[in-house]
Amino acid sequence: MNMSMLCDFYELTMGNGYFNSGYKDRMTYFDLFFRQVPDGGGFAIAAGLEQVIEYIQELSFSEDDIRYLRSRGMFTEGFLDYLRNFKFTGDIWAVPEGTPVFPREPLLVVRAPAIQAQLLETFLLLTVNHQSLIATKANRIVRAADGRAVLEFGSRRAQGADGAILGARAAYIGGCAGTACTISDRLYGVRAAGTMAHAWVQMFDSQYEAFKAYCEIYPDNAVLLVDTYNTLKSGVPDAIRAFNDVLKPRGITKCGIRLDSGDMAYLTRRCRKMLDDAGWTECTITVSNSLDEHIIQDLLQQGACIDAFGVGERLITARSEPVFGGVYKLAAVENGQGEIIPKIKISENNAKITNPHFKKIYRFFGNDTGKAIADYMCVYDETVDDTKNLEIFDPDATWKRKEVYDFTAKELLVPVFKNGELVYNQPTLNEIRAYCAEQVDTLWDEVKRFDNPHTYYVDLSQKLWDIKYNLLRQKH
Amino acid sequence: MNMSMLCDFYELTMGNGYFNSGYKDRMTYFDLFFRQVPDGGGFAIAAGLEQVIEYIQELSFSEDDIRYLRSRGMFTEGFLDYLRNFKFTGDIWAVPEGTPVFPREPLLVVRAPAIQAQLLETFLLLTVNHQSLIATKANRIVRAADGRAVLEFGSRRAQGADGAILGARAAYIGGCAGTACTISDRLYGVRAAGTMAHAWVQMFDSQYEAFKAYCEIYPDNAVLLVDTYNTLKSGVPDAIRAFNDVLKPRGITKCGIRLDSGDMAYLTRRCRKMLDDAGWTECTITVSNSLDEHIIQDLLQQGACIDAFGVGERLITARSEPVFGGVYKLAAVENGQGEIIPKIKISENNAKITNPHFKKIYRFFGNDTGKAIADYMCVYDETVDDTKNLEIFDPDATWKRKEVYDFTAKELLVPVFKNGELVYNQPTLNEIRAYCAEQVDTLWDEVKRFDNPHTYYVDLSQKLWDIKYNLLRQKH
Repeated sequence: MNMSMLCDFYELTMGNGYFNSGYKDRMTYFDLFFRQVPDGGGFAIAAGLEQVIEYIQELSFSEDDIRYLRSRGMFTEGFLDYLRNFKFTGDIWAVPEGTPVFPREPLLVVRAPAIQAQLLETFLLLTVNHQSLIATKANRIVRAADGRAVLEFGSRRAQGADGAILGARAAYIGGCAGTACTISDRLYGVRAAGTMAHAWVQMFDSQYEAFKAYCEIYPDNAVLLVDTYNTLKSGVPDAIRAFNDVLKPRGITKCGIRLDSGDMAYLTRRCRKMLDDAGWTECTITVSNSLDEHIIQDLLQQGACIDAFGVGERLITARSEPVFGGVYKLAAVENGQGEIIPKIKISENNAKITNPHFKKIYRFFGNDTGKAIADYMCVYDETVDDTKNLEIFDPDATWKRKEVYDFTAKELLVPVFKNGELVYNQPTLNEIRAYCAEQVDTLWDEVKRFDNPHTYYVDLSQKLWDIKYNLLRQKH
Repeated sequence: MNMSMLCDFYELTMGNGYFNSGYKDRMTYFDLFFRQVPDGGGFAIAAGLEQVIEYIQELSFSEDDIRYLRSRGMFTEGFLDYLRNFKFTGDIWAVPEGTPVFPREPLLVVRAPAIQAQLLETFLLLTVNHQSLIATKANRIVRAADGRAVLEFGSRRAQGADGAILGARAAYIGGCAGTACTISDRLYGVRAAGTMAHAWVQMFDSQYEAFKAYCEIYPDNAVLLVDTYNTLKSGVPDAIRAFNDVLKPRGITKCGIRLDSGDMAYLTRRCRKMLDDAGWTECTITVSNSLDEHIIQDLLQQGACIDAFGVGERLITARSEPVFGGVYKLAAVENGQGEIIPKIKISENNAKITNPHFKKIYRFFGNDTGKAIADYMCVYDETVDDTKNLEIFDPDATWKRKEVYDFTAKELLVPVFKNGELVYNQPTLNEIRAYCAEQVDTLWDEVKRFDNPHTYYVDLSQKLWDIKYNLLRQKH
């Protein structure tokens, strides 16, 4: 489906306005960035670029779209003609999906004629906001699970179909092992899995018969839901009986149970003992009831015996903080002579003042540890020479200075579109997931802490800081 | 896009299981209901039925779907053949969109062969959960705005494209006056509106020129964003100057300003005075910065001068409680003789025990006031005679009894599909929105309170209560 019309109406009124007041071909630079990590975390995970690329490649307006717009009685025929022949011709740079990112650094930079750049605003934001939100949340939950598998189980509580489908994709980037959502497997190769609901157990005349039938049909994938009636009194005993009757004669030792209610710390310990005593030591225990990173940490600290977590609504909606506050702000325009004029958006709230200009971001890695030390934003024409020491400073407290040495500087923003053409070699989803895990490993534990993490440095170059300061003085 | 594959994988493993263990044609009854009103509210608004209907009508599996499923190596060819020829042949009853609804009463009842009914689970839940969530939240916000227009501005923060598009639809049902989301207007007729972003102001050499250009292009729709630099010092003065220079000579008196930051209570009062003093008494003031029902109530209590609210992320994600916890539970099955056997799902948490059987819901309205008194769930073959008094009782405290008299009983569930055919005369979106407003009016203020509302009665008939009680005794 073509999502060109998924734009805020003001993008069209402004587009028509630019068209009719001589700003049509004015080259502009927009930054997409966020201001705060959800849940008070130390970093976010960038995600959604693949869908941004798809959207840009399919951007166009149908005759029906044009007819609808004409019916609104606000747009000139010249502008409607322009839309009819619309094609994105600009440049886009982006941070690759799976990269840990920090507040106020651009995840995406658009350089394009004003109308084009403006028209992308809503779709780019909603895509990057949504997937980064879920990838970030998933990464927290996966880290809490400490090596155990986390499965995304939330489709039924997602905010719409895309919330489910692309949410599962983003959760996978963040480190989930799979999903319950079949179509996400079919479309994106996010491994889908699942066995039974309570209805399966209720359908049969007895729980044992339901379990037995399931084991017979899926001997290699027998994960039985044991809490329909009473987990310890009948659920686990019936499961063991079915395993003994159906799997044992076939020499199968791998199987599982799932609990969806009750006191998980207590029940899983009791279940583990019952299974072990019956000789089913390889039977895994999966739990799945209103979990999140805090409950998972808590369960593991209480010695719960859990092999895998199915996480639903609190992951797929990022329930504790369901908004990733990305914004899309004008950073510069080109004058007729191709000169780049930095632009700033002022606010009485200092944190809302934008970083002007067409920018680059470097990430500095310590050569001794491989760990990320700081991010460094500079003007597009600056270059960091990492063979020399570099003094960096806190842009909000400029007296706090620090010399960086023995480091490797890596540019974060990579070219994605050049003159409207895709120039980015897109990684596979599994590559993105592996890259994410590897990059999160470059962060110090202090940055990865769930509560009160260390604030990672995102500094400005002296040149960029001076430009910003001068613009602020000028406007006040 | 066909959403048949947007199902939890377990629906397919169970489907294959039913198919291969003789339960293929077993007629089942499933209830879709929720357990708690979000935000501690007194009622929710049902929404999403139109998309459920669309989904059911398009349910089918393509050859590519079948190929994918075969590649998973778990499904028999017999079952895959069954899917290849899949068509929904069951019955569905639903509460019309826009109806105020209460915990534990079915919003939707499905009667269908086991495989079919099971396969609908995820899509039905996610659709009804999502749209009911947003309609419910929108209705709270609209009620807080006390007659002023509320515009849905959240697309960029929505959880995926459907979150934005259908979220705007649901917000409209709940009472919003319009949206910023263009495609929701194009697809569903939710009036889209919008004027300018900060970028428009930054693009021009001065704010005044930006405002003037806008007024010239859209003299009949000149709503100027006044907070790019400084609302009171330059924003409103430049707006007044542009109104004076462009609108006044044309005799136009209707215009507007929008504020997106700052202390809204203080600023809007000051803006109002400046506009009135300059003769622009018909100029409206719209505000739009992280609003929700509580902030809106608060602003109005402080005497803020606001004509319209643009509400973003806190509406489109229902940020304060982003999950509508609808579930889909087996309520009954038919035995071979067409007899309906009630089924129950037990839980150690009493609130999670289901109401068994194929049910009807009545809503009782007092003939004197027109207000809703109670909802009454009974077995499908019971009929309420509202010409006689009726004793109802609290199902959780059966000694609390009350006689209902002089009332009209209205059935809430209406037939939507019969033998797979649509039998429901679908209302238009504007009809749904009007119906919602009218039905919310039938609730007492005590039920509509935001905090600690009166708990509306949802009672069971004696017959239904007895069936439930007997099933519980049997299983324990």
